[in-house]
Amino acid sequence: MDWTAEIAAAQSRIEGHVRVTPVLMGCDLGLDRPIDLKLEQMQHTGSFKPRGAFNTLLSSDVPAAGVVAASGGNHGAAVAFAARALGYPATIFVPEMAGPAKINLIRETGADLHVVPGAYANALEAAQDFETKSGAMQVHAYDAVGTVAGQGTLAAEWNAQGLDADTVVIAVGGGGLVAGAMAHWAGARRIIAVEPETSCALNAALAAGGPVDVEVSGIAANALGAKRIGQICYDLAVETQVTSVLVTDDAIAEAQLRLWRGLRQLVEPAGAAALAAVMSGAYAPAKDERVAVLVCGANPAPDPLG
Amino acid sequence: MDWTAEIAAAQSRIEGHVRVTPVLMGCDLGLDRPIDLKLEQMQHTGSFKPRGAFNTLLSSDVPAAGVVAASGGNHGAAVAFAARALGYPATIFVPEMAGPAKINLIRETGADLHVVPGAYANALEAAQDFETKSGAMQVHAYDAVGTVAGQGTLAAEWNAQGLDADTVVIAVGGGGLVAGAMAHWAGARRIIAVEPETSCALNAALAAGGPVDVEVSGIAANALGAKRIGQICYDLAVETQVTSVLVTDDAIAEAQLRLWRGLRQLVEPAGAAALAAVMSGAYAPAKDERVAVLVCGANPAPDPLG
Repeated sequence: MDWTAEIAAAQSRIEGHVRVTPVLMGCDLGLDRPIDLKLEQMQHTGSFKPRGAFNTLLSSDVPAAGVVAASGGNHGAAVAFAARALGYPATIFVPEMAGPAKINLIRETGADLHVVPGAYANALEAAQDFETKSGAMQVHAYDAVGTVAGQGTLAAEWNAQGLDADTVVIAVGGGGLVAGAMAHWAGARRIIAVEPETSCALNAALAAGGPVDVEVSGIAANALGAKRIGQICYDLAVETQVTSVLVTDDAIAEAQLRLWRGLRQLVEPAGAAALAAVMSGAYAPAKDERVAVLVCGANPAPDPLG
Repeated sequence: MDWTAEIAAAQSRIEGHVRVTPVLMGCDLGLDRPIDLKLEQMQHTGSFKPRGAFNTLLSSDVPAAGVVAASGGNHGAAVAFAARALGYPATIFVPEMAGPAKINLIRETGADLHVVPGAYANALEAAQDFETKSGAMQVHAYDAVGTVAGQGTLAAEWNAQGLDADTVVIAVGGGGLVAGAMAHWAGARRIIAVEPETSCALNAALAAGGPVDVEVSGIAANALGAKRIGQICYDLAVETQVTSVLVTDDAIAEAQLRLWRGLRQLVEPAGAAALAAVMSGAYAPAKDERVAVLVCGANPAPDPLG
């Protein structure tokens, strides 16, 4: 796979459809060093997901039945948003665990929304059934080249904004975002892949020598709770020797509080997981290591203005 | 007054003590045009106020009794923050109407905090009594050269970040921030001074031909509810022919919601007042006019993680 070309093509496609999100250089958040931040939660629909969604839709012949997606919430909102912007019908399957804040977010875009009992895997099954019956195009949340290349535009954009960190810390669910980063940097920067202890599909796959099913739970589960890591992500993780670390729910909640109290950024648990790894010492950088943290989602529950 | 020199001196003094806050160029917020934003609510303590506070403390011989300030909340938090950073004792008087979220914010800095019944004017009176008795240095929230020059660094910083708007829209309470902007731009950009209908000290002063007392109320009153506009602000407003507009509480609440839903920025009412002027048509820009909006505070009540 020529990821450089895929990501460059994705950048051209999605330009103007997604926001260039702001970065903060050398931000004082009360840690032992200033850190660089990219505030990707300011992306349309409150997460990085529109990058992959727009790239997929803009590089496909979308059938008359439109697009279908399964999602813990953020991917569904992004697919619905992109479909509306481009004039396609969208059918979105979310699990109950997505919660009312995320379900409302998708509903507001006008997508045809189905709430499925259970977790992400159940919603994915329902979406696959719908795909078969309707002929709609499936937009996978993480394990597809178009999705990964779209998310990879975030890394390219951050580079262009002057990122000069040695290490970039990124939260991992199904692995689309971190795969995009690994594909873009290809070992040029150290990547720390952060998962909750209770939703750690990548960590388990690296231990097992390949993707395996895991149980998912915890405060970030509706965003990071993939049952199995994507194959694309797994292969890139092995190839680029990613560093996998785990954080507790308590550490995530502390990082959420720090982002709000210290920077007035109200994010969801998944959006704070990367910072949690640095704050808690789950990843302990060397003395002079320059660290950058990606803030990736801000659809918290309850919605503070809901 | 040589404002250019005052603001340049302030910039040198406060560099490293305050954050360079991010800007967004051409942001799509569902208006009839893209707008530029500066997200100054990401400043330390959640508002622009540390700029004036640091400039004042760093340009003064602070007495052993330290500093004293009266505040609807944000200025007090900033003075407490700056005093702690520089090693001075701080005594802060806030009115009850500041509310628990802002009162806790000040308490957390370790300042000696006094909650006074009533509104800002009552807290100011108590702070002036304390100044007389203790010999502490008063840090005025808006009507002092050091404060205005400090807030003016925001305008200088935004210019350096590539601002190319014709018009900058700014919320007004006592007038320190807008005075800093008027002092910096001195007519080079159109400045729209936005006040709530129910707290409009500048608008009333311009109508009366000089500062007059007004009643203050409404959802932004703890930040924008100055009883009388500062003389420095009034003089600059007349000299630079500022445009004064008023917004309703409903328009402010709608703008708060837009900033959250559209950009995942949770701000306080005062922080959304400038956007409210554009959204509601209180200020209606010309067809090709390039508009920039300053987001100035994010200490909402209730605290979403309080």
